[in-house]
Amino acid sequence: MECQGKRTDSLDQNDSALELDSSPLSSCEHSSSMQQTHPTVMKSADYEPVSSEERNLDVDFVTTARNNESVPMKDLCPDTVLGPYFSDGMRRVDYVLTYHIQKSGSTRRRSSRFGDNNFIQRLWRSLSTRSSRAPLQPKEDPEVAAQEHQTDYHEDDKRFKRDEFEENLRKTGLELEKDEESTIPGIGFLKIHAPWNVLCREAEFMKLKMPTKKVYEVKQGSNVVEKIRMFIHKVTAPLHPKVNTSRSQCEKPLCHAFSREKQHLFDLSDKNKFFDSKTRSSIVYEVLKRTKCMKPKYPLGLTSLLANGVYTSAYPLHDGDIVGVNAEPNDRKLLYEQWASYSVFYKYQPIGLIRKYFGEKVGLYFAWLGVYTQMLIPAAIIGVIVFLYGCATVDDNIPSMEICDPRNNITMCPLCDQACSYWKLVTACGTARASHLFDNAATVFFSVFMALWAVLFMEHWKRRQMRLNYVWDLTGFGEEEEEEHKDHNRAEYEFRVMQKKLKQEHSGLMDEKVKLTCTDRLPAYMTTVVMMGFMITVTFVIVFGVILYRISIKAALHMSSHPVVRYNIRATVKTTAAIINLIIIIVLDEIYGAIARWLTRLEVPKTDKSFEERLIFKTFILKFVNAFTPIVYLAFFRGRLVGRPGNYLYVVGSYRMEECAHAGCLMELCIQLCITMLGKQLIQNNLFEIGIPKLKKMLRKRKSELDSIQEQVLHNTLKRYEKDQLLGPFVGLNPEYMEMIIQFGMVTLFVASFPLAPLFALLNNIIEIRLDAKKFVTELRRPIAAKAKDIGIWYNLLRGLSKVAVIVNAFVIAFTSDFIPRLVYQYMYSPDGTLHGFVNHTLSYFNVTDFDPGTEPLQPMHLGYKVSVCRYKDYRDPPWSSTKYELSKEFWAILAARLAFVIVFQNVVMLMSDFVDWLIPDIPKDISLQIHKEKILMVELFMKEEQGKRITNGNKQSEFYY
Amino acid sequence: MECQGKRTDSLDQNDSALELDSSPLSSCEHSSSMQQTHPTVMKSADYEPVSSEERNLDVDFVTTARNNESVPMKDLCPDTVLGPYFSDGMRRVDYVLTYHIQKSGSTRRRSSRFGDNNFIQRLWRSLSTRSSRAPLQPKEDPEVAAQEHQTDYHEDDKRFKRDEFEENLRKTGLELEKDEESTIPGIGFLKIHAPWNVLCREAEFMKLKMPTKKVYEVKQGSNVVEKIRMFIHKVTAPLHPKVNTSRSQCEKPLCHAFSREKQHLFDLSDKNKFFDSKTRSSIVYEVLKRTKCMKPKYPLGLTSLLANGVYTSAYPLHDGDIVGVNAEPNDRKLLYEQWASYSVFYKYQPIGLIRKYFGEKVGLYFAWLGVYTQMLIPAAIIGVIVFLYGCATVDDNIPSMEICDPRNNITMCPLCDQACSYWKLVTACGTARASHLFDNAATVFFSVFMALWAVLFMEHWKRRQMRLNYVWDLTGFGEEEEEEHKDHNRAEYEFRVMQKKLKQEHSGLMDEKVKLTCTDRLPAYMTTVVMMGFMITVTFVIVFGVILYRISIKAALHMSSHPVVRYNIRATVKTTAAIINLIIIIVLDEIYGAIARWLTRLEVPKTDKSFEERLIFKTFILKFVNAFTPIVYLAFFRGRLVGRPGNYLYVVGSYRMEECAHAGCLMELCIQLCITMLGKQLIQNNLFEIGIPKLKKMLRKRKSELDSIQEQVLHNTLKRYEKDQLLGPFVGLNPEYMEMIIQFGMVTLFVASFPLAPLFALLNNIIEIRLDAKKFVTELRRPIAAKAKDIGIWYNLLRGLSKVAVIVNAFVIAFTSDFIPRLVYQYMYSPDGTLHGFVNHTLSYFNVTDFDPGTEPLQPMHLGYKVSVCRYKDYRDPPWSSTKYELSKEFWAILAARLAFVIVFQNVVMLMSDFVDWLIPDIPKDISLQIHKEKILMVELFMKEEQGKRITNGNKQSEFYY
Repeated sequence: MECQGKRTDSLDQNDSALELDSSPLSSCEHSSSMQQTHPTVMKSADYEPVSSEERNLDVDFVTTARNNESVPMKDLCPDTVLGPYFSDGMRRVDYVLTYHIQKSGSTRRRSSRFGDNNFIQRLWRSLSTRSSRAPLQPKEDPEVAAQEHQTDYHEDDKRFKRDEFEENLRKTGLELEKDEESTIPGIGFLKIHAPWNVLCREAEFMKLKMPTKKVYEVKQGSNVVEKIRMFIHKVTAPLHPKVNTSRSQCEKPLCHAFSREKQHLFDLSDKNKFFDSKTRSSIVYEVLKRTKCMKPKYPLGLTSLLANGVYTSAYPLHDGDIVGVNAEPNDRKLLYEQWASYSVFYKYQPIGLIRKYFGEKVGLYFAWLGVYTQMLIPAAIIGVIVFLYGCATVDDNIPSMEICDPRNNITMCPLCDQACSYWKLVTACGTARASHLFDNAATVFFSVFMALWAVLFMEHWKRRQMRLNYVWDLTGFGEEEEEEHKDHNRAEYEFRVMQKKLKQEHSGLMDEKVKLTCTDRLPAYMTTVVMMGFMITVTFVIVFGVILYRISIKAALHMSSHPVVRYNIRATVKTTAAIINLIIIIVLDEIYGAIARWLTRLEVPKTDKSFEERLIFKTFILKFVNAFTPIVYLAFFRGRLVGRPGNYLYVVGSYRMEECAHAGCLMELCIQLCITMLGKQLIQNNLFEIGIPKLKKMLRKRKSELDSIQEQVLHNTLKRYEKDQLLGPFVGLNPEYMEMIIQFGMVTLFVASFPLAPLFALLNNIIEIRLDAKKFVTELRRPIAAKAKDIGIWYNLLRGLSKVAVIVNAFVIAFTSDFIPRLVYQYMYSPDGTLHGFVNHTLSYFNVTDFDPGTEPLQPMHLGYKVSVCRYKDYRDPPWSSTKYELSKEFWAILAARLAFVIVFQNVVMLMSDFVDWLIPDIPKDISLQIHKEKILMVELFMKEEQGKRITNGNKQSEFYY
Repeated sequence: MECQGKRTDSLDQNDSALELDSSPLSSCEHSSSMQQTHPTVMKSADYEPVSSEERNLDVDFVTTARNNESVPMKDLCPDTVLGPYFSDGMRRVDYVLTYHIQKSGSTRRRSSRFGDNNFIQRLWRSLSTRSSRAPLQPKEDPEVAAQEHQTDYHEDDKRFKRDEFEENLRKTGLELEKDEESTIPGIGFLKIHAPWNVLCREAEFMKLKMPTKKVYEVKQGSNVVEKIRMFIHKVTAPLHPKVNTSRSQCEKPLCHAFSREKQHLFDLSDKNKFFDSKTRSSIVYEVLKRTKCMKPKYPLGLTSLLANGVYTSAYPLHDGDIVGVNAEPNDRKLLYEQWASYSVFYKYQPIGLIRKYFGEKVGLYFAWLGVYTQMLIPAAIIGVIVFLYGCATVDDNIPSMEICDPRNNITMCPLCDQACSYWKLVTACGTARASHLFDNAATVFFSVFMALWAVLFMEHWKRRQMRLNYVWDLTGFGEEEEEEHKDHNRAEYEFRVMQKKLKQEHSGLMDEKVKLTCTDRLPAYMTTVVMMGFMITVTFVIVFGVILYRISIKAALHMSSHPVVRYNIRATVKTTAAIINLIIIIVLDEIYGAIARWLTRLEVPKTDKSFEERLIFKTFILKFVNAFTPIVYLAFFRGRLVGRPGNYLYVVGSYRMEECAHAGCLMELCIQLCITMLGKQLIQNNLFEIGIPKLKKMLRKRKSELDSIQEQVLHNTLKRYEKDQLLGPFVGLNPEYMEMIIQFGMVTLFVASFPLAPLFALLNNIIEIRLDAKKFVTELRRPIAAKAKDIGIWYNLLRGLSKVAVIVNAFVIAFTSDFIPRLVYQYMYSPDGTLHGFVNHTLSYFNVTDFDPGTEPLQPMHLGYKVSVCRYKDYRDPPWSSTKYELSKEFWAILAARLAFVIVFQNVVMLMSDFVDWLIPDIPKDISLQIHKEKILMVELFMKEEQGKRITNGNKQSEFYY
């Protein structure tokens, strides 16, 4: 009577009984057995093995399922058969493990169902070798280990391990069904279903936050704010994806960590939908991770089993088909239509749905990408305006006017030894005018703007993340869960530890806890350091090679007597060099990625998190060095190590270091950036991400000589898990993030020299979002829903980059552009306070008699008159000075001004950034209010409940006593 | 039988009954009434008012207490009577409220007990006016409001409010006792005692973490680490304070939020000691904060009541006496002996005990101060070494050798117009040699070292804080509690809101939620901005005034014909100016503190937290500007705005701006820093903090003409709460922190110019710790134990300062010291790569015929020969150059080098700092392991308990069924 606790228990029993009854195939003895074993299930940590009846039951199921095969498929609705269900058509497949089977007999029997199709066999064989290398989803590398060890373990041994593993899985309460006779020959499927009580138990363990019955109104700020919000929402209505959210935006269910004892709090009206497919599969994955094979020499977890090839792949199922007759409405289809399509490129992303389908981690990636793209819009607009300002003022620009004015009869010193001759400055008119587009006062403003933009972006993202955390009920989710994840050791690490243990046991040494120490890893670390150093050197050497290419080609072309060739020299050299650079960057990118992975594997990191961190660290350094070395060279070194006429700097024998065109190197930096950004994005996105998959598909099609109708039929008769088996494995989000980080670097680091970078990035990202979306929805297996509160290390990298960007931009403006010299001239040297005479001021005098013998031009009379003094771009004392050709006072004054600018710029921008950072609160005010309110509501709910309980209790008590 | 929940209830009842029985005066009806009301007490949010019997009981108590007075005091042991107990000698006084009483009759009756002592009355009257202004402890300002409103409310009104408030307090279950006839006339005491059930209930509300029975071993790292730790502990044993911690350091009880339902988990063997005095008083304070007077026009909380003078002060009691016959062993005495004594200055602080007695916030302050002082030791050592290096190399220093060499017959231009004449550089020999002490290569190293030291300090503190958080079980303590604290509105804010509401009601406007908007506060904000601007201007003007003083005194002294006077000119001027600066700084410091407080009160911040933040912000800015303006002027502006001979810069008519001595301004900066630091600390610490209180005491003694024996007697017969009433109120930690932050600024900001700063700071802090300790233990009332996880805003200020320090030091080295010019000379201009000729290089030539008429010296033949060309310290072209007296190429080259140095220094040091920051994990590894372990243990404990329950349950059930 007073037993409140017991009451919930019995309620619970009823619930589970109900749930099981809803499955037509679950026989009476099943539900009764459940009832019997229930109290043990209630135990949380060390649940008892499921009773033997139940185990038998599962075997029965499998048998029944096999028997069912003889029943013609058509008798059942195709949805039930082909959907993600067990062969009973009721129990949902929450997870699939696949393995190799060698019994060709059964395969033949199966394939004979399709009669004539020898090709299918061939097709599946070719595909299955591919998919057999597909590892457990969140990892990327056990495939190699798998191949290494594959030969060691015989098939029988594998089967025994599988049997033990499956036995253990059943003990945890999961229900299994095997399908070894699927359409895909050589592959057996183990379908896993989590019944209601397992789901509840695990949800409680995992402290999953589930919606309670209590729904509360989300009030956003005061009335005015709310109205403005509504107005904006109305105006942007066409931009919102047509995703019917079941609840209005103003309501939010109160969520609470699921607890079986508090089941009455939750809305369990539809138990099949209480845990959605994402949650179900992540629960099963949690159980799988915990289950171990204990019989082999050392315990084997799922990761180890996958690594050893006992299982070939493990994945949860997609919700349904995207296209075709079987495609009933499902989240995947909705995502495909409303998100993974180029036709909706202008719309917001349905982040809530993405998170619901793929989990928080993927959701956060796309939310981040969305915020980044959104933030690029103002940057792109301002960038275009800055560029247009450059275009508009090009005719008013005094320095370029002076260069283009033929009356300023300035004779320049030759650009190369012997082959080149003196030239008129007026021929550089085009370059000078083009230079102005990217080198004007607006550029400085734009640099400051972009530095602040980066800070604003970070702040905006922090707030958005906080908002998402609130909406997704992650506010309480803390380190505990992550720590758990961290503690899960990698298979390779365990294997190595095992090896070490065995070795120690052989040598008689016994230690309680064997772990890999630094000394064990020392060779790997050494290799890493050496390889990283080597690869960075390779990058430098290649950049230097390109420089040599440029110098030599230029010299060679100058030798040529064709006037047309000579005319196009500069353009040709610049463009080819930039393209070569681009190709090298793209090729090295792929190589470096592979090498970083290999090096990280060598180090045998303990946990997945550590592996990921180390890999990201290496990849980031290598890819960054690769992408930015040529750019950094152009920005800061080119034209600075030239020497002066009569005393040039020579490299590799007799090659003179290259100089910039008159108007600075900014122009060339700009071209390089433009080609790198455009090319990299076009090639990597379009070729690698769109082209090659299409090409592969086409090739496959031709190879199998399969016409489209047949494929259609095939696809329609394939079961859900078979279809998903054909998709590519999910390899994590790191490559996507990395690509974006490099792009962010391009956008912020050298924005002073290329104001169009944000525009290019924006255009690329609009495609990138939909491209990634398509990949996730259609081409990859469904990832395990991983929880994440933030984007982790990437945020720190972004922060670091935006800090570095400030100083890099300061240097670009100060040293690469002519901004400071112009300013100094205007305010220190100009007689009338304008830029008139600036060009003359930047050019030093050189007496042609001071040429080293053998370097003077072969055609001194090329211009038609004898040249006695030529000019070159530098600040040096004239030949008639006592300190001839030494750096002049102007040089030092301008250098001081440049350095002062760097200091001022860096500190002012940093201060402003810190100020903005401090000004904008990390947690939006309405969200912090809501979180507070939610806490109060939660306490209220519990209080009310407790009170209610006490009253009932009290009544009962009084009944009892009186 | 199955009623598990009920079982604990009854257990609970027994417990409380037991507790109450332990009090001899608590009559039977009391404990029975408790039993009856118990179920309602169990309700958590809206507990019922205590039943009327109980209330009567409380009145009884008071009556009994009054009756008791007639019983001679001596009959009870003095400990019980004078200790912190109710008059029954059993119930502990957890909190005291005081109020004015006007019945002089009772006072007379009371004072007559002491017979002849009219002086006592006078003494108490003088003291009580002081203490009546003592506000609720954590606030500092309602005293003014109290005085304002004091006249408005009549005494009767106050008494009614008090009666209602006390009524409400009794409803919450607190027990009260009044003492209106104490030794101190005119002051009534309301003693508050929290009985066990109230303590339990509130502890559950406040989620206080209490130790459970489970004790676990704290294992720190591996064996080797443990051994090293033990060894260090043994070696430093004499440094540890002799505080007997009840448990060994290797054990720690598992703590868990107190819950009445889980009482069996906690060690309740001694209920009187389960909640210590600190916890008891903070629990009572929590109840007091929540209780409101509802009858007046608007609800009055404790803060408002204090502000309105209904109560005059509120404080918890100290544990006992420090000295004297009544001083039984107690924590306060232990603290006094082992901590608040100069004789233990070399020992560690007993942080655990401090926290136990004063709470976490005070504990953190002293822990921080300790870490800071500890970290200053290496800095001081290195600083002294750097200084000694300067001393040792002073004779090898080529520039000063050259200056001191009379063979270098260099004639310098006059230092002032007319009155001064030419002088020999050799006379500056002493200054040059002294300069070298602070301006050598080691200084640069020391700057870098100190920048990294600052980062290390922050990191070390972060780790120490984390460790303390772990030891003090604050790891779970999060934002919730702080938010709660935040939500508590200030009395003045409520009052203003009330005013506004009334006004709105009058004008017919009705709004649900009235709050102070920006427009309401606009005048205050305007005042703040104007006043802040004005005060900063005042500081600047004063600094400028001191400059003028220096210039004019110097000129005047130069006119004097006494050779002795002229000889001591420089020293005199420097020292007097520095002392004037110091005095101004100290005076303005006090004024600015008061003004900042006034401005913040004007703004009427909503919450205490907001008040504190605004106050700190203002005080920090004002005090910082005040302390550092003269120093910044000396470091960066002095000697830079001089002009050149023939074209000097004149200010205020005909005063020439002052120049530095030959060897740079570093020397003067050093003197200023030295005097400011030493003087400020000596005067503020010794005079203000030691001297003035002593003086006051002495004066008071003389005034009351009380010989020491009488005072002794008086003190021995005073009750605990009367003694505490005589102490000063606790005004928060902010002034202490502020002092330290300014000192930290001195230590880090200009460390490049004064390597002895850390030593001075260290010496000061060793005294400061004990001084503060003495103040807290002996001179102030006990503060309410406030919880805090960190030192809050001060950490950010420290971080900000250490960032600013990097750039300031870069500038000091580059611009104030001669380091860069020496380097540039050595590597660019020196003919032999040494510093020979450096002095000559730094001096420009001036043709005496180019003096402006009227500025040439009156005694040109002062040196005994005619001077045609004199030298001055600057890089300018010589008179024979075409660009005479213009800045020379060397100037620009050195400027560029200086700026380049700033950039390199800043970025390298920042990078190194970030690297160190990244390298050292914020949470010590062993702590994070321990936290993890603790979590697991906690889960285990609960699991075991739950399982045990289930088994019992199950057994019971089976009993029931079978």
